[in-house]
Amino acid sequence: MADDFTVTPWEVKGKIDYDKLITDFGTQRIDGSLEKRLEKQFGESHYMLRRKIFYSHRDLGWIMDRHEKGEKFFLYTGRGPSGHTHFGHILPWLFTKYLQEKFGVNLYFQLTDDEKYLFNPDLSPDDTKRLAYENALDFIALGFEPKNTKIFLDTEYIHTLYGIAIKVAKRITFSTTKAVFGFTNSNNIGSIFYTSIQAAPCFLETEYQKKNVPCMIPCAIDQDPHFRVCRDVAPLLGYYKPSLIHCKLLPSLSGEVKMSSSVPETTIFTTDEPMAAIKKIKNTFTGGAVSVQEQRKSGGNPDICSVYAYYNFLFEPDDAKLAHIRAECTGGKTMCGECKERLAGCVAKFLTEHQKKREKAKDRLEDFMLRD
Amino acid sequence: MADDFTVTPWEVKGKIDYDKLITDFGTQRIDGSLEKRLEKQFGESHYMLRRKIFYSHRDLGWIMDRHEKGEKFFLYTGRGPSGHTHFGHILPWLFTKYLQEKFGVNLYFQLTDDEKYLFNPDLSPDDTKRLAYENALDFIALGFEPKNTKIFLDTEYIHTLYGIAIKVAKRITFSTTKAVFGFTNSNNIGSIFYTSIQAAPCFLETEYQKKNVPCMIPCAIDQDPHFRVCRDVAPLLGYYKPSLIHCKLLPSLSGEVKMSSSVPETTIFTTDEPMAAIKKIKNTFTGGAVSVQEQRKSGGNPDICSVYAYYNFLFEPDDAKLAHIRAECTGGKTMCGECKERLAGCVAKFLTEHQKKREKAKDRLEDFMLRD
Repeated sequence: MADDFTVTPWEVKGKIDYDKLITDFGTQRIDGSLEKRLEKQFGESHYMLRRKIFYSHRDLGWIMDRHEKGEKFFLYTGRGPSGHTHFGHILPWLFTKYLQEKFGVNLYFQLTDDEKYLFNPDLSPDDTKRLAYENALDFIALGFEPKNTKIFLDTEYIHTLYGIAIKVAKRITFSTTKAVFGFTNSNNIGSIFYTSIQAAPCFLETEYQKKNVPCMIPCAIDQDPHFRVCRDVAPLLGYYKPSLIHCKLLPSLSGEVKMSSSVPETTIFTTDEPMAAIKKIKNTFTGGAVSVQEQRKSGGNPDICSVYAYYNFLFEPDDAKLAHIRAECTGGKTMCGECKERLAGCVAKFLTEHQKKREKAKDRLEDFMLRD
Repeated sequence: MADDFTVTPWEVKGKIDYDKLITDFGTQRIDGSLEKRLEKQFGESHYMLRRKIFYSHRDLGWIMDRHEKGEKFFLYTGRGPSGHTHFGHILPWLFTKYLQEKFGVNLYFQLTDDEKYLFNPDLSPDDTKRLAYENALDFIALGFEPKNTKIFLDTEYIHTLYGIAIKVAKRITFSTTKAVFGFTNSNNIGSIFYTSIQAAPCFLETEYQKKNVPCMIPCAIDQDPHFRVCRDVAPLLGYYKPSLIHCKLLPSLSGEVKMSSSVPETTIFTTDEPMAAIKKIKNTFTGGAVSVQEQRKSGGNPDICSVYAYYNFLFEPDDAKLAHIRAECTGGKTMCGECKERLAGCVAKFLTEHQKKREKAKDRLEDFMLRD
């Protein structure tokens, strides 16, 4: 049963075995020595590394070598605008922001409005463009600065991207996309071409500066297949291979492996009214026992609990406090209702503050946007 | 043997049966009544229609209905910049110019530098861009005016084209491109996507004006597969289907079915020194008999003669004069050497004048160019 899962950029099914994914995708684990090296760089330890939320990489050591030798690199991440931003998207963006601060580098944020139009039968170009701008507000609200952070929509920056994309595309056969993404003859030809558009930003600064500039991509591991293909192609074009640092997927409130826009009742969107989010959390799947009596006696199981997952991934960066939450649960001291209430408070506070920042982001949006 | 030919936008092989091509492609013959209707519109008869050089169409009657009702349409044609312009390219451009004058409409000229890069292993993006600008000079030299004629390179106008192209691409499966273009799993993903870029200009004025504007495409019939697919997709997007008028391919000087840049010795380029072109014509395949004596007795065969083909397609628009050339040949009065010399004179004169206009076109180029 552990093998019974699928992870592609467009589909996550089954219970992911994250260790097996490293083998399947051919990535590297962030081991103790690499984690220490990052800590040394950061001057501190980050909970997402300690807790193995960011757990896998490609060529992270290589790009740190470059950085330590004084070579500038840049960060690149993105978002497929198929709906409003939810906490699963926020997760890697928070770490991206941390990386940007610690390394002091430029960051490019790609909004793949073309992708979401091409892959989703129900979305129009206007829909994905509108959603892209909505998502951009959430990104900006996290505190990025326009002086070193640029955002673009594929359809609005395509003049710049297309020249790179066709160079990549010329080196990728349909066979490769079948093998890597599971495409079939029924795929539309835009979806088949698309991976070259997601590859293009890896080489943006190289194209701007007319010399090779390394690129580091923080992203959820489901996006890795795009960059695996891209990395195979890069040397053929004289580019550096992009380096990656991968995180796990934030589980949904119902305990599903990935929070998903298509199931709004178990997903907290950044645009949710705080009261609506609180209600969703009240219905959350927990690791509680069958009865209060039973739970007081035997305790709950935080390892299968969505509420605990939210503390772990996002809302309790302090390890000692997280350990306390765990102990109170397993010891039968805190009941699920209480634990949910506390999380609901954290989430409501986050949303209230985020939504204020999101409003302010509207005035600053244009400072971030790159357009042809 | 008549069936033993292949015609796709990237490959022409064997002896084309142009009648069979109409059936294979599912186009319509330009019949007597449609020809008369065009003559009425033009106020005269054009030799390329009389001689069935332009011989096939799609929805030509429909677009003339529209025109007669006062609805503006626009013309769209193009060129794949894989080499210098040769006479095979000039042929449909001359008729396009005639159509533009007679209908008084706008014309868009697409230079598919992305296509030629994606389909040709030996060409770089810089190569196809440079060749595109070379080809543009030949086009302008034919006498087009920038007030109603616009030229663009795909890579330079992609911001405008891409939004249309992905709408088209979403409705075309890989299966369709396999069936229509003969693609395989080894095709690169840029080449698979490309047809949507060639489809996009069909809807340019519709996008500019935010209302449906009919499009007429004069082109060699080998380009029809792109527009067959495009026509299937158009109604799904709320666009009019583009209308087409197709010409036959200019044979090479060696009697091959298509003049081709890849065989320069049997192809006359607009950039050839007149003396070099004369030399090529001297080596031309003719319909001459085995000996002068035999030819004086039995005459030559103009129907298999490349020299005669050049008179027919390009250099002798006067039917009476062409009939005279034919009679002198079949009657054994004119020998091949003499006939070649006369054609060489016409070609040298054309090239000398064209090359002067081509030089002047350099100063006017920018007036024609559309860029994002």
